[in-house]
Parts: sequence; structure tokens; C-alpha cells
Amino acid sequence: MKAELTIQLAHGGGGRLSRDLIQSEIVSRFGNGPLEGLPDAATIPWHCDKLLFTTDSYVVQPIEFPGGNIGDLAVHGTVNDLCVCGGRPKWLSVGLILEEGLPLATLRKVLDSMKKAAADCGITVVTGDTKVVGAGQSDGLYINTSGIAEAIKGFSLSPARITKGDDVIVSGNLADHGFAVLAARKNINISSALKSDTAPVHRLVQALEPFAGEIKFMRDPTRGGLSAVLNEIVENRNINIQLNETDIPFSTCVKALSETLGIDPLHVASEGRIVLICSSQVTDQILHTWKSMPEGFGAQSIGVVDSGKGRVTIKTITGGIRIVDVPRGELLPRIC
Amino acid sequence: MKAELTIQLAHGGGGRLSRDLIQSEIVSRFGNGPLEGLPDAATIPWHCDKLLFTTDSYVVQPIEFPGGNIGDLAVHGTVNDLCVCGGRPKWLSVGLILEEGLPLATLRKVLDSMKKAAADCGITVVTGDTKVVGAGQSDGLYINTSGIAEAIKGFSLSPARITKGDDVIVSGNLADHGFAVLAARKNINISSALKSDTAPVHRLVQALEPFAGEIKFMRDPTRGGLSAVLNEIVENRNINIQLNETDIPFSTCVKALSETLGIDPLHVASEGRIVLICSSQVTDQILHTWKSMPEGFGAQSIGVVDSGKGRVTIKTITGGIRIVDVPRGELLPRIC
Repeated sequence: MKAELTIQLAHGGGGRLSRDLIQSEIVSRFGNGPLEGLPDAATIPWHCDKLLFTTDSYVVQPIEFPGGNIGDLAVHGTVNDLCVCGGRPKWLSVGLILEEGLPLATLRKVLDSMKKAAADCGITVVTGDTKVVGAGQSDGLYINTSGIAEAIKGFSLSPARITKGDDVIVSGNLADHGFAVLAARKNINISSALKSDTAPVHRLVQALEPFAGEIKFMRDPTRGGLSAVLNEIVENRNINIQLNETDIPFSTCVKALSETLGIDPLHVASEGRIVLICSSQVTDQILHTWKSMPEGFGAQSIGVVDSGKGRVTIKTITGGIRIVDVPRGELLPRIC
Repeated sequence: MKAELTIQLAHGGGGRLSRDLIQSEIVSRFGNGPLEGLPDAATIPWHCDKLLFTTDSYVVQPIEFPGGNIGDLAVHGTVNDLCVCGGRPKWLSVGLILEEGLPLATLRKVLDSMKKAAADCGITVVTGDTKVVGAGQSDGLYINTSGIAEAIKGFSLSPARITKGDDVIVSGNLADHGFAVLAARKNINISSALKSDTAPVHRLVQALEPFAGEIKFMRDPTRGGLSAVLNEIVENRNINIQLNETDIPFSTCVKALSETLGIDPLHVASEGRIVLICSSQVTDQILHTWKSMPEGFGAQSIGVVDSGKGRVTIKTITGGIRIVDVPRGELLPRIC
């Protein structure tokens, strides 16, 4: 019984235990106001204006992986949290926790990646902090990034607006990040070039401005993957989400790894993708817009919202229907 | 030679090595704009307004110490960084890095302290993040807090405005925090009640509004203590700062511990004090204002600014003059 009274890895996995911990310990204490509903970023009034504010710590292991490292991941992750809440990222803070003995060359490589990523996203690093802990009291390097964005006018994002008939769209292949980190950690030799999808989504979001009013929800499917995002939406609502397995874009390599390792790719993180729910009348326009952009060429409509009892289901390739549940344990700790 | 190419504990100590690391690795990459000059918080334009933004990670060891714990420390520290840059704290983010096996009771105690501290400071927790790392990959609990404040009108803080004739004031006893944490860590039995000074300074700063224009500089003397703050001001300037040892307020317990342990209290952190430099014409009014408040009753004018070659000196109790240098090594790692 004692294990239940301590923190477990699964508390950080983005699944059921994570949500329980956040609800019972964080929301119960701080949850009146912008924190309520746990959006990726808080929208706060600022005089006659609105700004968005978010924070994330990054503890990914290994620090470097195919397609990126903890530095660009830490910039993209916070930029993306701001973007999917309808923000135009402006200002970034960087908090470093360094372990004694970390090679300076590693730190430099990570900071170079952060600089490049921030420049690409048009976000400015304006404040920072550096702490050092003794050897064995950290695991190389942890990074916190917090970010401020201005609200893009026209968006009115709220899961409460989602209704029967809406479409579910993703901006590209899912789960590349999680499997790339897993492969790097386990030294799995991937002959094909599976890389993390870590990337900023700011251009994808800014391109949506003409349809902003018809978009009801956006999120980047990180810890817990697509299944965690969609289950959170339908929870305690009279709606279902029905996915079509044939429409969900996965790379060949992700499909092969997921079969070999027995890991459901619907539970695995992406770090440069958007899950979007919109009125069906703008679906074609959004797909057309995204598919014309390098970061959105793999966009797909993957399912629909129906009335129901708060379930996410998937129509499998063989024609069956199964329930898509939230990941419960922790398959991939320290994925971001 | 190899040790020079890795991170050392002293890189986090707030002294010379810390500043070198920040200058060579951070400012060199990100240092155009609000980051330049390394204020405690960045002042950034927001349409016709200004806001302040800051971040800090907390890795204090032990997590609990006489007078506080990592939770209230993490709120006070970020609130204070905003305050000493002339801000009225408004919004706070909380990023937790939890170690597998951390007792839930410890987490709850820390979060309760954060809630109480935030309420006392009038700052609202609006966004957060929780990561879990495996046993042995952290040291219990690390916290990042980032904060946003609105600028209090009237302040025009800049070390460049400091000139000959200005006064140096502190808001109360110095170094209590550092020695309290040290005593807790080393199990030193302190019969007198030495407690950390961790506390918010927002009321002290807001009380300065009538004299805001005559105040040139404020900072909370945390890592590196008073000596680090003052040396940073005079560096590469044609001014000296002359302190009077008899005027610097230290508790009897701090004096005793500093003599016993051979640690200069000028190098030791406070977490609820302000070092302020102002035109001498408002010194008496500031002291009068602060001394009437519970958190400022120990305020003292401790020295003056003179022309010179960028040195901080102290007139000792015995009448001699000695140079107050920046701490070089790392006496007290993980003090905050």
C-alpha cells in the first residue's frame, strides 16, 4: 500500500494518474481562474488586451535524439503550447538546472539549438536562471521554458463548443517523437530515418486566422498522445469521438516499431503536431491550407464528433470498432 | 585541465564563475534586448504598457529548513525578483520536477506553502507543469516559478543612474536564509531561533511609490549575498561603494555562526531583503517608511556611493578599510 503514497513514474506520463495528481493536488489548491480546465496555456486579461502564459519543464532522456535535442524541444514545446491556445509567441524565459560534471560542450550544443529554434519561432529569450546541483542529483540537464504570447484575434477556443458533426484533423504523422526517443534510448537501430517531429507549429496556427471562428479546439498531442487529448475532451460530456484508423497518419517506421514493441501509437507523443476540432464547414479549407505548407503536408481529417456517452472509438482497418482508452501506466518516461 | 570544461558547483553560486558562465554562454547567444544587463526581471513593452517577466528554478537542499520550505521560497523568490525591478506581481507559473518515490505528504506540504505564500503576495497561479523523473535522477523535488508583473508607475530603475553621494540601504538583517539552510543541512543545533528570512518584499516596494523617482536600484541579495550585488553595480564604473560594518544589520546568531564557520556573511544569501540605492535626499523618508512596517523594521543605511575605480570597500569595526570581493568558489551550493 505504501507505494500509493509516493510519486510514481506514471504520475508524469500524461495519462490517468497524471490527471488524477493534477486534479487532486494542483487544481484543488490553485484552480480558480485561468488554471481551471487545464489548458496548455493560461489566457489572462491584460488591461484592455489578452495575453497567454505557459510553462513546461523538460527532462527528456537522452538529451540528444534523432531530429533534435532537449534545447530545441524546450523551445518548440512552450511555443506550441502558446500557439494551440491561439497565441502568437513573443517572450521566453529559460531556467537551467545543470548537473555538476556536465560537459560544457553539451551545454553549448543545447543552447545553440535553443537560439536557432527561438529565432525560427520569432520568440525572444528575455530572462533566465541557472542552477547547478551536485553530481548524481540531476541527470545532466533539465530545462524549464515559460512563454508569453499575444492572443491572435478571432480565435474562441473552448472544448465546450465542440458538438456533433465537428471534424477532427491532425496536421501530420503522429508519434514520431516518442518512438524516436525510445529508439535512441534503447539503441534500436532504425535503418529508415525515423526522426522526432519536434518543430514549432506557429506558422500552421497563424495560417488558420481566416477560419479562426470556426475552430473550437487545438492541442499538441504530447505526453499520452492522441488518445489522452481526445479522451480529455469527451470526459463527462454527451459526445463521442469516432476515429478512422485508415485515416490516421503514421509513418511506416512507427507502424513497424509499434507492432514489434507492442506499443499503441495512439498513446505516443508527438512534439510538432496539432490536433484540431472544427466545424465541418471549414474542414476542406483547413486541409487545403495546411497541405500547402511544409509542416502541414501530411494533414488529415481523422474522425468526427457524434453524440454519445463520452467515449473515443476507432474503426479499425479490419472494420471492427474498439474503444481508445487513456494510457494508464507509464510506457515511456521522460519523453519530453 | 579537464575539470574546467565541465560544469562545476561554483557555476551556480552567484559569484564570479556564475557570472562568467552567464556572460559567455547565455548573454552571448540571447543578450540583445531585455536580457542585457541581467536584471532580476525583464521589462518588456506590451502595446502602450509595460510588463515584467522573470523565472527562477529552486533546488534548495534540504527541502524544509527553519522558517520555510522550497514551496514558499519558490513563490517569494520570483515575487521578489519582480518587485525589485519595480513590478506589482500578478501571475505565476509553477513547474514541478518530482522524483519517483517522493512522499505525497511532502508534495502536499510544499504545495500548501505555495498556496499560502501566493495568497499573501496577491499573485495568482495560472499555469503549471509536472514532470516525474526516476529515482536517483533528481533529489526529491525541484520547482520552477516564472512570474509576470505590471510595472508600478514612477520607478525608473537603472544602475547607470547611480552616482556619487547616493546612499545604500538594506531592509533588514542579512544572511539569515543562507545560515539557516546551512544549519539545517549540517544538523547544527542553534539554540537561538535562527530562521530563514524567506518572505515577500512586495509591500516594502509598494510603500516606496512616493519616492519612486529618486530610487535608482533595488535587488534582493540572494546567491552571492550583498557582496555580489554591490560588486556587480560598480564593475567597470567610475564609482566605489563604501560600507560601514557597524551599520550592516546581522543577527547575533549569524555573527556567531559566521565566526565559528569562517564564512563571510557578506557572501551569504537572504531571501526576503532588499538592497536599495537612492538619492540621499530620500534616505530618511525611506527608512522612516520601512521601519514602520513589520518586514522593514530592521532597515538600515549601510553605506554611500563615492567616485572611484569600481570597488566595494568596508570600514571595519576596528576602523580599518578592506575590499569586499565577489565570492569565487561555492561555499553553499543549493541555497535556493
